[in-house]
Formats: sequence, C-alpha cells, structure tokens
Amino acid sequence: MEDRTEIESLGEFELIDHLTNNNETSNASTILSIGDDAAVIDHFGRQTVISTDLLLEGIHFDLGYTPLKHLGYKSVVVNLSDIYAMNAVPTQVVLSIGFSNRFSVEALDEFYAGVYAACQEYNVDLVGGDTSTSLRGFVISVTAIGEVAPDTYVKRSGANANDLICVSGELGGAFLGLTLLERENKIFQETGAQPDLEGQAYIVGRLLKPEARRDIIEYFAEAGIKPTSMMDISDGLSSDLLHLCKQSNTGCVLYEEKLPLNEEAREFAYKLQLDPTACALSGGEDYELLFTVAQADFEKIKTNPSLSIIGYMTEPGEGKNIVTRAGNRYALVAQGWNHLTK
Amino acid sequence: MEDRTEIESLGEFELIDHLTNNNETSNASTILSIGDDAAVIDHFGRQTVISTDLLLEGIHFDLGYTPLKHLGYKSVVVNLSDIYAMNAVPTQVVLSIGFSNRFSVEALDEFYAGVYAACQEYNVDLVGGDTSTSLRGFVISVTAIGEVAPDTYVKRSGANANDLICVSGELGGAFLGLTLLERENKIFQETGAQPDLEGQAYIVGRLLKPEARRDIIEYFAEAGIKPTSMMDISDGLSSDLLHLCKQSNTGCVLYEEKLPLNEEAREFAYKLQLDPTACALSGGEDYELLFTVAQADFEKIKTNPSLSIIGYMTEPGEGKNIVTRAGNRYALVAQGWNHLTK
Repeated sequence: MEDRTEIESLGEFELIDHLTNNNETSNASTILSIGDDAAVIDHFGRQTVISTDLLLEGIHFDLGYTPLKHLGYKSVVVNLSDIYAMNAVPTQVVLSIGFSNRFSVEALDEFYAGVYAACQEYNVDLVGGDTSTSLRGFVISVTAIGEVAPDTYVKRSGANANDLICVSGELGGAFLGLTLLERENKIFQETGAQPDLEGQAYIVGRLLKPEARRDIIEYFAEAGIKPTSMMDISDGLSSDLLHLCKQSNTGCVLYEEKLPLNEEAREFAYKLQLDPTACALSGGEDYELLFTVAQADFEKIKTNPSLSIIGYMTEPGEGKNIVTRAGNRYALVAQGWNHLTK
Repeated sequence: MEDRTEIESLGEFELIDHLTNNNETSNASTILSIGDDAAVIDHFGRQTVISTDLLLEGIHFDLGYTPLKHLGYKSVVVNLSDIYAMNAVPTQVVLSIGFSNRFSVEALDEFYAGVYAACQEYNVDLVGGDTSTSLRGFVISVTAIGEVAPDTYVKRSGANANDLICVSGELGGAFLGLTLLERENKIFQETGAQPDLEGQAYIVGRLLKPEARRDIIEYFAEAGIKPTSMMDISDGLSSDLLHLCKQSNTGCVLYEEKLPLNEEAREFAYKLQLDPTACALSGGEDYELLFTVAQADFEKIKTNPSLSIIGYMTEPGEGKNIVTRAGNRYALVAQGWNHLTK
C-alpha cells in the first residue's frame, strides 16, 4: 500500500514549505526566491522577457493518461518554449496551482518533481507562485521570465517577402501521440484492457514530454543568425504560419514534400488512416520553432540537421498557399488540431 | 434585452483582439506588449520584482454577489499589493483567465474593464496573458512585475527586537463586508429578497474593491523610511504578523487598543454580535501593509495619519502576545478568517 498524506493534514504554508524546500536557485540574477511576497530579479541592464500559460484539467490535459510528473515538466517547458521563441533565454518561472481534495501530497510531489526536473534541465529558477484548493479540477498557471541582449528579440511581425520559412525538428508527433492515448484510454474505460503503446514511444513522448528548442536559439547565437520572425508551434503549423503572415503582412508558399515528418509517426498515421501531411500541418503541441530568415542565411540553415526549409514568404497579394507533392497548389487553411479529431 | 455575443462566435484570437485592442501601454520600459509569444521589458539596471496569484471561483470569490468589473479590478490590485509590500513599484501585469461557456463576451468585457481600470489607476501595463475555456468555473491568474532600486526591497525577515509594528489604514472591514454579502446572498437564495446593503458602503467596498497602498510606499520614499520587514495583510493581522515573527525570528507584543478600526465597521460588528477586535485580528483581505521600523523612525510614522503603531517586536523567547484593553496578556493565535465564519 502506498503512503498517502492528506493535504489537509499539512495546511497551506507547511505544504508550500514541503513542496519548495528542495528548490535551489542557481542564476546569479535570482536575488530573492520563494518565501516572500515577491521574487527579486536583477537583469544587469539586459531586457526582461515574460510569458504565461494557463493549463486546465479536461481542456489541456487528461489525468487519465498523463502522469503528473510529465505534466509538471510540460507545464514549465511550454512556457520556456515561448521565451525561446523570442530568441531569449529563460531565467526564472513562477508557478501557481489549484487542486481539489482528491489530490494527495504525493501526487503534488510527483507534479513538482517534473517541474523541478524541467527547471534543472533548462537552468531556470522557480522563484514564486501561489497554491490554492479548487472545487474541481487541476489548474496550472506558469509565468516564465527571460532575458535577451537589448533589441535582439524576435517578433512575429518582422518577416519579409522572399524570406525562407523554416522549422526545427519534426512535426505532427504530439498530435498522433494524443490520438493514440485517447484511443487507448477509451478502450481502457470501456473494457479495462491495458493500453497497447508498443513501438509508439516516440509519438507518446512528443505529447507527454515535449522539449523546448534551446539548442536552436544557441545555434542562432553561434552562427550569427537573427530570424526575421519567429514563434513556437503550439496550435499547428498552418495556424501558426498564418499568424506570422498576418502579423508580418506577407503571403507564403509551403512545400508538402519539405515538411519534416518522423518515420514512426508517419507509419502510425497510415495505420490510423490519417494523412501524415495533415497531421504535420494541423497537429499542435509540437513546440518546435517556426521562423523566417533572409535568403542570405540559406547556407547557415542548411548546415544544421535539426532545421528544415519548408517554403518562403511572398508579397501579401499572392495569398497563403501549399504546393503538394503532385504539384498542385491549394490555399493554406488554419484548422487547428481539433479539426482532426472531429 | 441586453446584447449577448457568444464567445464561440469569435474564436480565441478574435476574442483576444476584442479584449485587448484598447490596451495602451504607458511605461517606457514596455518595449513589446500583447500579441507576441512574450512581452519584453527593460528595467534599465533596476531590480525586477515579480508576484503571482491564482483566483478560483467558489474558493476566492462568489459570482453571486461579486460584480465582474470589481473582480477584474481586485484581481490586479491584490497582485500589486504584493509588489508594494516589497517596497517596489509595479510596472506590468500578465493575466490569464479560464471561463466556461456560461460566460458571454459582454461578461468578459466587464471583467476586463475592471482590469484596465486598475492598470490605469496604478499606472501598470497589461503586457500578456492566456485565455482558455474551462469545463467549469472562472479561473484567474495574475502575475505582476515591479521594479525597485538595487537593494531597497523589504523582506519579511528583517525585523529586530524593539522595532515598532505598524499598519496602514483600518482593519477588519473586508471580512465584515464578506459576512454581510454572504448573509444577504443566502437570504436572496432562500426568499428572493433583495439585499439590504444600506449604510454599509464602506465594508462592502473594502471587500469588493480593495486598493493597494501605493501612497504608503511613496511616503516611505519621501520620508526616508526603510521598513525592516513588511508584507501585505491578506490572511488577517494575527496570521500575517506571526509570519513576520517567524521569518524574522522575533516575538511581539500587540495592543488591542491600538488596532485601527473603522467606525462603520465597528458598528456593523456589534450589530452581528461579533467582536470588532477579533474581526481586525483575524479578518483577511484588507490589503493593508503590515511592517516594522526601527524606533528611530517613530516620529516619521506618527506624522502620517494613515499609519498606526500597534505594538513592538521582542526577543523570540518572549513569545507572541496581545495585551487587551483591560490589561490582560494573551498568546496571539493565527486563526485566519475562516475561523470567524464557523
């Protein structure tokens, strides 16, 4: 039998102590961390970047198949991804959670273990937060702070016609992982059969334990690349690229054959009779970086195996288009990934 | 008949546009605001202060008697109060909300009207956030950022024996406002009778539209006072003072006769057969500042009519005590304000 400590048995302040007493800060800029009204951060004249996300049970995650440790890890990572998407380096996070009395201290420990693992992996400090009971459902709010050398941050609105459109990594995996887990969870609910995840570690990992592309930001700094526009892919490539086009006032041409797809993901898509291209275009939560660069940076992008050039920006009047393998041209549509499941 | 626009009819991005298109930033340090992955803030070498709060329906507020505009205002103010409690000046906030489909666009407009009113009143910029649907209940997360000249922030842990214990404003009003509104709401639910709030504007206002004590922080700067410890009163004076004592490793003596009580609040307490002193000690959400100063600052505190000296810190071995009007000495107990309603 597992130990179970009721949260009520601790009280709020003891619970915070319990959850944070192993929290170590490592950035020199973290002057004052958890335990006061606010945290104090010094950025030594660099610019401060801040981003926040709210994650709600039943909307953003299903505890039926999401281990709490993974959820804690992902809650931090998705915020860090936003900071990297500014070409900035995250330094601190604050985290608030609300939880009903169905959670035990051990469950929250699991969640925080994931939070701390992410903080350690990305060298950020958890410097504050708030905890509360909720009537129902698990509520997570994370705010990340980052820094960037003055005026080197990258907005969504800076792309120009003829800029190359690039993405990091591979697309569509998280969506396929979600599809698999929802299918297996439904079977489990109906029949009690244990999930069959064999050979699907890649897509399940893409959903449950995404990573933020710090390596790409580091590569930009090394290689002397400053993207003209950038964002992370959370809603799906089509939807997010249309954002870049709208905010930059450009059109675009995407090439289906250039979309980076993982082989395991592609096979699983075929197994489910899904179009792998549609998964790559409309599947969300990959947390890869979508960015544009001037054509002069072509060689620098080509030499990095984690980067793919998937198209180019155009004058706005030329529309937003995708060219299929067969050579047909279609208008790019923002379907978001909910579309795929309906 | 009132206009009602379904949130679904807009979609997330249009909704964000709709809610934020009147958002103006005014701080020179706000370089990039809503509309990108993150906001960019420059603090010109000053120290950055960040604080966050999560507010959940049914736990922190009851929409049965809380106007959404007031709720928006309060959501921001309680965070700013944390920044002031560091002796810092808030400059930006980020706000995330989750809401079920029972909310209309107009309802969210009301909420944001309150948010913007608070931002304007306190000269802070709303620079980012996240919006999401929720399965049930209204979820609010606010993170505030502030700045402070290097090393002038005030922690909870700096008090020394013989320091004077001081509070701003008057205590217990918010608790009495809550008591009144819960009583009237219950009567309304049971009988349909409209609430009788006549003559109770002060206590209702203290609960529904609290203000953060920016004026006190400004006075400290003018008068050359640096408190030795400080926090804002959210849980109740006893509970919060015990925090200062614990973190500063001191004891304390409070004087009942020195506790600042509003006359209207005192009368309402008697009407309900509540002890006004208990309301001042254990009632929360007053968002006044509780702080300690060296005895040398006595004259500077005395000359400000918004400040009361209510006791002094002692060596830790002397315990934490309150001296009643009758001259009796009792141990100070942290009851929190839930105690009063049980």
